[in-house]
Amino acid sequence: MDGKDHDPIADLIVTYNELNSSFIEELHEEPSALEFMRFVARNTPFVVRGGAANWKATQTWTAEHLSNFLGDETVNVAVTPFGNADAPTIHPQTGSLVFAKPHEEDQPFSDFLAYVIHQEKTQGLRKSEVRYAQTQNDNLRQEYLSLYSHVPPTIPWARIALSSLSDQEAKPEAINLWIGNSLSTTALHKDNYENVYVQIRGRKHFVLLPPHCLPCVNESELKSGGYVRRQHQKTGGGDEEKGETGEEEGEGQKGGELELVMEKENDEETGKEKDVTVPFAIWDPDKPEENATRYSKLAEPMRVTLEEGDMLYLPAMWYHKVSQSCSQGGICVAVNYWYDMDFTGPLYPFTSFVRAVNQQQQKYHQ
Amino acid sequence: MDGKDHDPIADLIVTYNELNSSFIEELHEEPSALEFMRFVARNTPFVVRGGAANWKATQTWTAEHLSNFLGDETVNVAVTPFGNADAPTIHPQTGSLVFAKPHEEDQPFSDFLAYVIHQEKTQGLRKSEVRYAQTQNDNLRQEYLSLYSHVPPTIPWARIALSSLSDQEAKPEAINLWIGNSLSTTALHKDNYENVYVQIRGRKHFVLLPPHCLPCVNESELKSGGYVRRQHQKTGGGDEEKGETGEEEGEGQKGGELELVMEKENDEETGKEKDVTVPFAIWDPDKPEENATRYSKLAEPMRVTLEEGDMLYLPAMWYHKVSQSCSQGGICVAVNYWYDMDFTGPLYPFTSFVRAVNQQQQKYHQ
Ligand SMILES: O=C(O)CCC(=O)C(=O)O
Ligand SMILES: O=C(O)CCC(=O)C(=O)O
Repeated sequence: MDGKDHDPIADLIVTYNELNSSFIEELHEEPSALEFMRFVARNTPFVVRGGAANWKATQTWTAEHLSNFLGDETVNVAVTPFGNADAPTIHPQTGSLVFAKPHEEDQPFSDFLAYVIHQEKTQGLRKSEVRYAQTQNDNLRQEYLSLYSHVPPTIPWARIALSSLSDQEAKPEAINLWIGNSLSTTALHKDNYENVYVQIRGRKHFVLLPPHCLPCVNESELKSGGYVRRQHQKTGGGDEEKGETGEEEGEGQKGGELELVMEKENDEETGKEKDVTVPFAIWDPDKPEENATRYSKLAEPMRVTLEEGDMLYLPAMWYHKVSQSCSQGGICVAVNYWYDMDFTGPLYPFTSFVRAVNQQQQKYHQ
Repeated sequence: MDGKDHDPIADLIVTYNELNSSFIEELHEEPSALEFMRFVARNTPFVVRGGAANWKATQTWTAEHLSNFLGDETVNVAVTPFGNADAPTIHPQTGSLVFAKPHEEDQPFSDFLAYVIHQEKTQGLRKSEVRYAQTQNDNLRQEYLSLYSHVPPTIPWARIALSSLSDQEAKPEAINLWIGNSLSTTALHKDNYENVYVQIRGRKHFVLLPPHCLPCVNESELKSGGYVRRQHQKTGGGDEEKGETGEEEGEGQKGGELELVMEKENDEETGKEKDVTVPFAIWDPDKPEENATRYSKLAEPMRVTLEEGDMLYLPAMWYHKVSQSCSQGGICVAVNYWYDMDFTGPLYPFTSFVRAVNQQQQKYHQ
């Protein structure tokens, strides 16, 4: 570096880029447990094209079929004005960037689904709130239990590979169902799980970054707030919300009705109210100039679109941003399996080390 | 840390220690390729007690047997005054710590072996030079070829696990034979190989440190020198060196005859002669107070003694110091298999990152 001081963080990102491809490896059949373990060892994603093509879910889940199965059972829905559940968001009043949690609402499944489809098919006609079934709480084995038998209870190669020598069988910590439309985007974040993500209907577009890219994503302490629905009843007649045309039924269903209310907590020391904050990535690889750090431009995001029946291995601690496109039927449906990651070995401590060094650098550069 | 600045390097070492045991995992039968791959993924050693008990080598290699097989074939022997081949050593004239390479000599195998055994059995009687067959150049498939069929040509679980998805079969890069006595010690160092180390005769005592312990081992730029034998012929009669009693035949065989000659090279810039230097760990976990860094005391070395027939998986880039004890027969014999390590994934770049941050810290603390 021309006799200048090396920047260890920049060198880390560049060295990794030199040794690793930013194109995802594509398999055309499911890996063996051993083949999978080689990817786990390298903490490297892959996609299995058509790996879940024969699942009953992939074969049978249409909007009609799902509605028939679940009917009026109530499901938990994340409601946001812009499809920004759990996302950095400009606060409409203060203009500052905050972390926005969705308003959560129980809705009859068929109403929810009809709303999602109708919105997708009439997109752009008017602005209306966005609904996404995305409770990451093992929902496929809870509220969507009646659909659970349409997918395998575990991913055999992941189960075998991730089980420990002490004969403990790796069970999915959570199996999550995701149902939404193209208006929902999941903001860049990471999870401490090994993730097998399976596309059932429509398409998902993943943007991926390895754990050591932490200095690129501009993790910042954001004030946290949640959307609250101000008026629960519509301005129109006293009818039950009618999914199919819900978003057209006056102000009651429009984004304007969702208010972003900031969370407060008690400061133990002063006894006064203070803002709740959460650390969150605010760099968006799709808007690389905004909120960038001095390292963002070194990131080489890996991009992959999952088609119906594709499976993605998303290694523990990888950053992922996820957007979606709908099927002809106007929905996007996916199922993912979270397995516990291994906190032993070097990866977890190394990742914390990058965070600590990055914080130290930030102090020096201030 | 009481409001004080965190030290990222100290935190890294401590976090790793909290999540990982410093006791080695013991297996009692060879692992499957998948089980092995789980250790590779965690970059964590294990020992298979008795894993090689049935090898022909383990069953048949006695001193007599080896001598019968190899007879007067010449082999390359590392000769040092103190058993310090490739080790940080106080230079006898200058008193400074330098890196000492052994004098390398071709010797008839049976003479070499007789010398090693005789020295072991008469240890302490007089000081004499130490001989160690330790050419790490695939010697079992070269100079010791006649013994090669006594060990498996590869370790099946390593071969299968380390082969790549693209169907390239992992072959050992090198298979090395080590023959010496308890006077030889291999100084703390690391190799960029996955290592399967198999004890055949006697015992080896390993002290192990994971790659991120680099800041503990005090890697320093040492001037490099090599031992040179000043008088090749003994002062006694013109006889061929007689192994069995070799070290008693006068000055000719004593340590004093080996002179440590420093290496010089031309400085491209000035055109003058300058010292050749090599970076090498100078902290010895067995003398923890000497040459320590501010991080050495945080290291929790993993210790394991290999008995005859034991196999050790020594993961790529782990520091290892190796000392030895002899069998009844007065020898210590081992065979190890080096497989190429995987430079993709996070481990290699992370390890370079630790080095870079450590260098930066050193500058600030100077
Ligand atoms: O599908 C999505 O919207 C996000 C998926 C996700 O974040 C995950 O599987 O961890
Ligand atoms: O056995 C010894 O003396 C050293 C072994 C070693 O360094 C290795 O196998 O890499």
